[in-house]
Parts: sequence; structure tokens; C-alpha cells
Amino acid sequence: MRATTIHAPYDIQLSDVPDPKIDGPTDALVRVVASCICGSDLWPYRGENKIKPGSRIGHEFVGIVEEIGADVRTVKPGDFVIAPFVVSDGTCPHCRAGFQTACDNLVGYGSSRADGGQGEYVKLPYADGTLVATPELPDEAMIPSLLTLSDVMGTGWHAARSARVKAGDTVVVVGDGAVGLSGVLAAARMGAERVIALSRHESRQKLAVEFGATDIVSERGEEAREAVLELTGGVGADAVLECVGTGQSMETAFDVARPGATVGFVGVPHGVEVPIGKMFRRNVGLAGGMAPVRAYVPELMDAVLAGEINPGKVFDLDLPLAEVADGYKAMHERRAIKVMLRP
Amino acid sequence: MRATTIHAPYDIQLSDVPDPKIDGPTDALVRVVASCICGSDLWPYRGENKIKPGSRIGHEFVGIVEEIGADVRTVKPGDFVIAPFVVSDGTCPHCRAGFQTACDNLVGYGSSRADGGQGEYVKLPYADGTLVATPELPDEAMIPSLLTLSDVMGTGWHAARSARVKAGDTVVVVGDGAVGLSGVLAAARMGAERVIALSRHESRQKLAVEFGATDIVSERGEEAREAVLELTGGVGADAVLECVGTGQSMETAFDVARPGATVGFVGVPHGVEVPIGKMFRRNVGLAGGMAPVRAYVPELMDAVLAGEINPGKVFDLDLPLAEVADGYKAMHERRAIKVMLRP
Repeated sequence: MRATTIHAPYDIQLSDVPDPKIDGPTDALVRVVASCICGSDLWPYRGENKIKPGSRIGHEFVGIVEEIGADVRTVKPGDFVIAPFVVSDGTCPHCRAGFQTACDNLVGYGSSRADGGQGEYVKLPYADGTLVATPELPDEAMIPSLLTLSDVMGTGWHAARSARVKAGDTVVVVGDGAVGLSGVLAAARMGAERVIALSRHESRQKLAVEFGATDIVSERGEEAREAVLELTGGVGADAVLECVGTGQSMETAFDVARPGATVGFVGVPHGVEVPIGKMFRRNVGLAGGMAPVRAYVPELMDAVLAGEINPGKVFDLDLPLAEVADGYKAMHERRAIKVMLRP
Repeated sequence: MRATTIHAPYDIQLSDVPDPKIDGPTDALVRVVASCICGSDLWPYRGENKIKPGSRIGHEFVGIVEEIGADVRTVKPGDFVIAPFVVSDGTCPHCRAGFQTACDNLVGYGSSRADGGQGEYVKLPYADGTLVATPELPDEAMIPSLLTLSDVMGTGWHAARSARVKAGDTVVVVGDGAVGLSGVLAAARMGAERVIALSRHESRQKLAVEFGATDIVSERGEEAREAVLELTGGVGADAVLECVGTGQSMETAFDVARPGATVGFVGVPHGVEVPIGKMFRRNVGLAGGMAPVRAYVPELMDAVLAGEINPGKVFDLDLPLAEVADGYKAMHERRAIKVMLRP
């Protein structure tokens, strides 16, 4: 089969790799219907994370189950499934508590135990603990939104949940990538009265508004802080979603939070120093992390299938898998918010 | 009048200072009935915080209102009052939201606007926003417990609230000082099923058990982590109260937290580096800060006056104010958990 491999910074290829095979009783083999490129895939792409040349990449996909192991109970061949961005066993105490990303037997895609998501097929262990099947085969038009439940929509949701967004809140979202935009959608759906999106890009501002943002702040740093204080009568936000993961974005997140607020963070931290003194003086909390999207798929899938949310709008570039390298380039250059790949 | 002053590391004196006078419409003048020494008073005492020689010290006291300004409405001369450890106006957005320690007009004791608490009298601004009167003059026996509401009991309560302790939880309390012990009491009162106190001192262990601890762990560092994992079937704690504020105590707090848990922190951070990578991977949150004890006084006062909690047991040394220097020495040498001073 063909699957995406990374060889060096900026060197993404579609390669011939061995066909995967079921080899354990809890395995599933999934034919990928659509996959996508994640903001976190750009870290190795840009050489900011270590690369093992030739390794598989990609961890967001939806597809059709081709084959299952003898012990798999919740999905069957022919099912359309959503695959959360990590594989979890579904049975350990952390999975049962809804924190599947801390699974005792966590498996990453593109590893010896699970194929990368940006390919034609993915074999993975723990099918029951990982995959969620739709009640029936979804319409083609639903596929982009269902694909976002694999990562970005669930991650934006986790940012809002971690920040403890509640009805009536004023929420600031730092970051206008696909996760930040999903965070806007999540905050609005949780009943936030005001959602202030920090965004400098016109197309993203537009989508933020479509997703429920009531205000756009295009400033950064100290000016962003002033703009948010101006908008909130000097008080700051009840909840802040930090959807980037850099030192600057985290600083801005804390700067705009009112005392008692929580910063919900979901961007992989790179060069972040947590301002513990400011947290102490102002009672601003920090919560979040690698989103347990598996916990959110059922609820969000129902919302997508009912047409209540349409997070698939974050995809603004749809490419055949053969053009995966162009997809990375488009995301890297910020020409695309989020790229969908069709094998 | 006489009031405690600090002149250099380890140099605490009882000095003659000018009698305070009401000079604003929201002021109150309180005759101190009992005050105490705080763990945070030991930072300047040990020279770890900067000292302005001759400055006043102390921020925890209860007393009788002597005189009020023209606009004071909620307390009157003759009332017995509990004074939270900072002065807050009670009217700004942060006070109204219950985060009085982030008051827009915050005033510290021992400053130009409010006397130090370890003295005979204290003049403070914002009487209505700060002081809470008991319904009637309390019995002498209630005074120690009421005095803890000025700081340590409210701070332990804040640690538990920030850590989001709920009924049935397994809670770890890091720190066996007066705040940590109050945290044990708070967690037990909030319905924690299991309260694991980290303590190496026999007298403190005993009080922890009296306050509701179900398990004592006397190990530190990596061994403490192993002991807690052993006690929790390898899972970790649902909530962790960090009641010290050092790098080591914070590290231990994160080490014993299960994924999805929150570390509630209330110790003034000294040399703390927040393990953001571990927080991300394990979804462990951090919340808390300078406790808004003013928000908790009414509820905790009722519990004290009803005899439901007796946090005053943290006082194990009761000295006349004239012996304040000995009190500091006893706390510094850990011969006393908490020292009460009677003018």
C-alpha cells in the first residue's frame, strides 16, 4: 500500500510500504477514507522535532473497517469509524475515567504497533478502546466534520472543557488554527455569551465568526491584552483557551485571564514557561493537555450527524493523498488552515 | 501601642509605635484579641524575603471593633470580627466574583494603610469589604478556631476547592504545616473518601488523623510517589493539595496526581518550576493561589460556631504578645506548628 513517510525536514513522500495485517485479537484493519495533516505534524516537518528518516506520519483519519481480530466487539467490517489520534485500550483506570490519552497501554500511530494515518490502510491494536463507529454510513458531506472529531474538534472541545467554560461566560481563544477555531465553536456551543477570537488572518477571522466568535482581536502580545481588557471593562476573560503552545501564546493567555479564570491549554508546549508567580497572585489556573478526544467522540458525533455543528469547515484544502507533500507545504506556509487527504 | 516589628533576619521585636486613628469613612479600628504567626512570616524572618528594617509584621488576627468610619455598614463598635489576611474593598469586580485577594484596591497589613496584625490595635481601610462579624461575642474556647479563618483554615479550604475535591475522592495533601493540616480537614469535610497526608512529624501526623486523614505517608520525593501509587492501586490521587510552595513539594504533588486530577496550590511559590510537559502528557491541572479567605469566612465561621470543625487545634503554642520573638523562633525551629499571640 501507499503511505506517507518523512525523511528529513521539509521532505515528505508518498511511499510503497508493506500491506498491514491483523495479528492480534483486539486489532482492526481500517481502509482510510480521509485523513488530514495536523499542526503537530509540522513540528517534525520543520525540523523542530527529531525525525527518524523514513518513518510513517499522520494520526487523524476516518475509514471503513476491513477486518477485525477475534475479540473485537464494538466495530465490525463495513462500519464507518472515527479514529482518535492515539490508540487506547479502553479498559485501564485512566481510559475508564475518560483520560484515554493517559492510557496505560497508549500506542501512537506511525509506530511498530499502528500504521501512520496518512496512508491507504491503518492496522491498530485495541479497536474497541479506540474506534467509534457511526450508526450508519454517513453522507459524503459529513465526512470532513467527522474527520475533525479525530483530533481538532475534540481538542478544541477539550480546551473549552479544561478552561471550564460555562453558559454566560466571556471566553478568549488564543490561536486561530484549526484547533483554535474548533475552540471557538466549542465555547459557543457550551453557551459562552462572548467569544473573543485572537486572529490576524482575514479568512480565519471570518470562520471564527461563523463558528460563534462575537469579537475579533487582531493585536498580539501587550496590545492584545489591552484590547481584551478594553472589551471586558478592565476585568478580563472568565475562561481562556490556549490553542498554540508557544511561550508567547501562553503569556497572552494568562494576560487576558481574570482572577479565578482557568487557561485551558491543548497546544503541545514548546518553550513555555508557566508564570507561577502571576498564577498565584491572580488565582488563574492552568488545565488541559493532550486531549482525550475518544471521550468526546460520541457526543460530538451526534452533534455533527444532527447538523448542529459543522467543524469540517476548517478544511480549506482537499488534496489526493498523492499530493501530500503539497499539503504539508500549504499548511507550513499558512496558505491552508487544514488539509484533508483522500487516498 | 505595642506592635511587632522586624529589623533584620531573626530579629523580631515588640516595639512602641504610634496609636492608630480612623481617618477615612470606610476605616475600622480593631482591638486585637488574638493574632498569630504565619508560615509566610518566616520568609522574611529567615532573610529569604527582603526586609525593610523596623517594618510591621503580621496579617492574621481577630478582635473587637473599637471605632468605624462614617460609611461602614456591616460591622459596628463592640463586634467580634475575623480579619482576612489582606484588606479588600468588597466592591470591585474581583471581590464580587469571590476573588478578594485580587481586589483592585488590595491593601496589605503592615503597610502605610493598615497596621500589622501582631499588635494591640489594627486600623484598616475597607472594613465592610474585609471584616466579618460573628453573630454574637464568641466563647473564649472558639477563639483559636475563629482565628484560623483569618488565614490557614481558609487557605487549606482554598487548596481543596482549587483542587476540586469532591465526595468520594482520594486526596493527597502535601505539607503538614498548619495550612496542610487545614487542607486535610477541608478535604475530609468536602467528602473525600480517602485523605493521604504526607507528614514526617509524629505530632502533625496525629493531628492529621484527628482532622480526617485516613493514611499517612512519611516518605518524601520518589519514595512518596511510590507509596501513594501503592495505596491507590497504581492510579494516583483524584486531587492533590500542595500546601508548601517549594520546588520539591510541587514536584511531589504532580507525581502523585492521576491523569485528569488538579493540583490545588496555596503555598507562596519559591523556586517552583511548573512541569508543563508532564501536565500536558498527563492532563494534570494546576489551580489556586493566594486564598480569597474572605469568601470562605461566612461558611467556615458557621461550621466553627456549630462545633462541626475545630481547626484551632493547629495552635500548639499560645504566647503573650510580649514573647513574640520566641514564637517566631519556635515556628522557625518547627517546635511549634502554629503560634497564637495574645496582646
